[in-house]
Amino acid sequence: MDGQATASHWLSELAACLAGEDPSRAAELFGDDCYWRDFVALTWNIATCEGRPAIAAMLAECGGRTAATALTLDGEVRTTGSGIEFWFTFETAAGHGRGHARLRNGRGWTVLTTLRELKGFEEKRGETRPLGTVHGAIRNRRTWADQRAEDARLGLDRQPYVLIVGGGQGGLGLAARLKQIGVPALVVDRHPRAGDAWRNRYRSLCLHDPVWFDHMPYLPFPDHWPVFTPKDKMGDWLEAYAAIMELDLWTGTACRSAAYDEATAEWTVTVERDGAVTTLRPKHLVLATGMAGKPEMPRLPGQDMFRGVQHHSSAHPGGAGYAGRRCVIIGANNSAHDIAADLWEHGASVTMIQRSPTLVVRSETVQRLGWALYSEAAVKAGIDVDTADLIVASTPFAVLPELLKPVVERMKQEDAAFYDGLRAVGFQLTFGEDETGLGLMYPRRGSGYYIDVGASELIASRQIALRSGVGVASLTEDAVLLDDGTRLPADLVVYATGYGSMTGWAADLISQEVADRVGPCWGMGSGTARDPGPWVGELRNMWKPTAQPGLWFHGGNLAQSRHYSRYLAIQFKARYEGLATPVYGMPQAQA
Amino acid sequence: MDGQATASHWLSELAACLAGEDPSRAAELFGDDCYWRDFVALTWNIATCEGRPAIAAMLAECGGRTAATALTLDGEVRTTGSGIEFWFTFETAAGHGRGHARLRNGRGWTVLTTLRELKGFEEKRGETRPLGTVHGAIRNRRTWADQRAEDARLGLDRQPYVLIVGGGQGGLGLAARLKQIGVPALVVDRHPRAGDAWRNRYRSLCLHDPVWFDHMPYLPFPDHWPVFTPKDKMGDWLEAYAAIMELDLWTGTACRSAAYDEATAEWTVTVERDGAVTTLRPKHLVLATGMAGKPEMPRLPGQDMFRGVQHHSSAHPGGAGYAGRRCVIIGANNSAHDIAADLWEHGASVTMIQRSPTLVVRSETVQRLGWALYSEAAVKAGIDVDTADLIVASTPFAVLPELLKPVVERMKQEDAAFYDGLRAVGFQLTFGEDETGLGLMYPRRGSGYYIDVGASELIASRQIALRSGVGVASLTEDAVLLDDGTRLPADLVVYATGYGSMTGWAADLISQEVADRVGPCWGMGSGTARDPGPWVGELRNMWKPTAQPGLWFHGGNLAQSRHYSRYLAIQFKARYEGLATPVYGMPQAQA
Repeated sequence: MDGQATASHWLSELAACLAGEDPSRAAELFGDDCYWRDFVALTWNIATCEGRPAIAAMLAECGGRTAATALTLDGEVRTTGSGIEFWFTFETAAGHGRGHARLRNGRGWTVLTTLRELKGFEEKRGETRPLGTVHGAIRNRRTWADQRAEDARLGLDRQPYVLIVGGGQGGLGLAARLKQIGVPALVVDRHPRAGDAWRNRYRSLCLHDPVWFDHMPYLPFPDHWPVFTPKDKMGDWLEAYAAIMELDLWTGTACRSAAYDEATAEWTVTVERDGAVTTLRPKHLVLATGMAGKPEMPRLPGQDMFRGVQHHSSAHPGGAGYAGRRCVIIGANNSAHDIAADLWEHGASVTMIQRSPTLVVRSETVQRLGWALYSEAAVKAGIDVDTADLIVASTPFAVLPELLKPVVERMKQEDAAFYDGLRAVGFQLTFGEDETGLGLMYPRRGSGYYIDVGASELIASRQIALRSGVGVASLTEDAVLLDDGTRLPADLVVYATGYGSMTGWAADLISQEVADRVGPCWGMGSGTARDPGPWVGELRNMWKPTAQPGLWFHGGNLAQSRHYSRYLAIQFKARYEGLATPVYGMPQAQA
Repeated sequence: MDGQATASHWLSELAACLAGEDPSRAAELFGDDCYWRDFVALTWNIATCEGRPAIAAMLAECGGRTAATALTLDGEVRTTGSGIEFWFTFETAAGHGRGHARLRNGRGWTVLTTLRELKGFEEKRGETRPLGTVHGAIRNRRTWADQRAEDARLGLDRQPYVLIVGGGQGGLGLAARLKQIGVPALVVDRHPRAGDAWRNRYRSLCLHDPVWFDHMPYLPFPDHWPVFTPKDKMGDWLEAYAAIMELDLWTGTACRSAAYDEATAEWTVTVERDGAVTTLRPKHLVLATGMAGKPEMPRLPGQDMFRGVQHHSSAHPGGAGYAGRRCVIIGANNSAHDIAADLWEHGASVTMIQRSPTLVVRSETVQRLGWALYSEAAVKAGIDVDTADLIVASTPFAVLPELLKPVVERMKQEDAAFYDGLRAVGFQLTFGEDETGLGLMYPRRGSGYYIDVGASELIASRQIALRSGVGVASLTEDAVLLDDGTRLPADLVVYATGYGSMTGWAADLISQEVADRVGPCWGMGSGTARDPGPWVGELRNMWKPTAQPGLWFHGGNLAQSRHYSRYLAIQFKARYEGLATPVYGMPQAQA
């Protein structure tokens, strides 16, 4: 059989199995090594089933109740070194799905199923876009401005169904999706203006990911947009985005507390808006306050007597005013490097203290080797962002190591001189415990790396001083003391010591008990240092139901925010419309 | 010869002729009936040469000096009922061009040549987009925010090369193009916020043109954008557009006077910004204050004693508060209809006074028959907005009547019942003096029509009263007196009496003498009532040099603003870079 026939046959067998004709057949369709990743289509969850028994169990429980049917090959079957791969469409009782499969020796290796839109609630766009006016004569016509004025009463006269805390790219992109499918959602953000979370960062900050990776839902960046968006430009974009997408956003609004009432299945959320306290009662609460979580500040003896300036990296305003001053950066990841370089550019004398090895990748290299799907070449090849996102999603996390190791190996070879230069000054390098590089460092711990845009050269050339493999013992009035006895005179100490889990926001806002029950966000349980097991195969607690009813976490880089917000929005829409949403693999309470 | 060979042969003959081998050959390449329309490529003007002698003369003068060469067939040759048509590319000494030609019996019928980009000053987009940051370590790095802060000093520390008066879609779209090609341009607008020119209009206003026709440069409306943009949404879009495109815009700034100094080739423009008077000294002054020009208010006996409310349609705030009130609308074009319907929707008692026949077309019909190039179907067929604009441009104005008459005929047949209903209540209809409909009514006079979105049915059903074929004699304390002796009691009189030529802005701002010298804007000299001859074949004084050095007019609907701003911007860029821009067919002073 040729690829096309193999794929069609396999899909029809799978369809029969989903129709419940003989659930045990499901197992036969898959090889020994197999994965089924589902985005809300079958599981109403974001979950990967690994191995034949897990897949068979999932299909037995979910296949019938979601009524997955009409599996149809979509486009050409592609032959790869190890087998074939192809796209397909399908229907469930609730919606329209799109899937991808890879077969090896005629049996399933990886399957992705995604729920794209709900039936009867398809987004209005293109041919089905709204008219914008009603032609004809209508007494007491409601205009667009009338509608927007009524929207502005959301949270006052009417309660939002979803309350999103945090108006960064995550919160706003999700709100845009909810607006388009008609779910009342309110975004609250503590900053005075949309985009301020970006504007307030250190002045040299630009996105480390390239523009092709960063598009937000519905409104792509135009063709002339810079590759690496400067932070103030990003802020302005978010502000314009909120206006264009007609988002319901309360700026200058701090979220003070939230409590869930099991009886009414409703939150009571106290917010302070421009000084006035208001209570909101949403059904769902989304924390989109930054996947980085709360800043982690080390407690060191002598911090109270230090006479210079000391602050966490997240509070660092930039290097202006530090010319000739002695600056100590504690930490050696992205923020530490960016801040060190910025201080150097302003003429400061900078020392970086590296406590543990760092993954460093050159921006140019990672873009060339790692981001082929998100590039001008991909655009020219007709790979739109949505397709690229689905291609990425089609590879389960468990399969990533074998794909990433050769890329890391190539990177090490191509940039050998670069890495040698860093080693020569004592910089401690890592490429991940299993040499899988940035591709897994990021989902495992969201930190531990630096995408080099210039600081590494300053370190290699000793223009930024480096102290590596040492810890900080204490501070004095005017110095940092290292645990090897070194005394570093300092006017400024920046703690680039990272962030806690997003769950920390839940502890602050709701309760420690709820945070403990939900457990940490991010990481897949890879068994590496900052991502302890057990293995769960997907990012924990992100974009899907948690052990706390009505509590959701949203975040990540722009690409994740864009892609996952689609599936998060559809989960809310289904609940808002009262559809059955039985969650397969519901997370258990952790504590 | 097949079409491909015919086209190639014709292009090579034309190339030889452009190279000056034998200018007299040019005439042989064209049929008896022939047109060459040029957008800045050969003529540094927007001009149509009609007939063989005119074309030969233009080629003889412009071919050599622009060094047009490398004419290359681009894409497939299309066979039509009357011959073949095809696209081609070409080069001039200054830039890259794109052209279109239609041949009949192997000889040229219509040719379009457009200058797309200047060599060495191509727009940075896609692969050539800016990096957004400079990787590496740079002392005293300039950030994006630093650059924007410096931009904000334009007009204070540095003078703009181009000053654009008016921050509507025209002014902002042009400013965006100039920003992208690096010409310092400042937009001044009298309203407090960008977009207010739209927000301040009557509340029911929506664009009458559909979304596919309305895209602005660089940032297309997203897929979910409504077909007919409500005016407040349009206002918000313009405000977001100005931010996203990084335009240098002074809001709350009224332009008080402008004078040109021939010696320095510079304007002295006095503006009042938030109450403070500032002098600007641009090289070029663009009036983008609305192609509609200044409101025309009739002077009627008794206006001073009328106790009700009276205002021009442009000042009408909407029907709120007029329930049960008697409202008289003087005029029967677009604004008159929209305002009459809005008042009726608010429960007012409305009478429309039609002084002369009106062209009425149903919105649905005109969209179906008239806007095929700008539709969801066109998008699906891969016709992007730029291509659609070029296709429209490829047909010279002189050829339009023969194309439009059959469309009007079909429209009259399809909507016969609709028109009969209007005639039955005495509404006077016209389809243009030569039955060419909206397609020529708009470029000839920019008014005289109504695109029906509901008011016609109210008139046909007598829910809006109509008095037709009568003039207004005078006003009394509480009524409008018609010249047939009728007395119409009135609480509100709206003068929907149209607008003067854009040149009126020049008279106010500069001097009557300059306005007279330039002559009227708009109209092609069709010899019809509101567009007297002589025939000039292009819209007068729009987007191209005028008889007043340094004075330019920009405007029109969103589609015109988008398309022509491209060629207006390139004219400024060429001058800014000191290129030779010899204008062929320079307009003569009118007075």
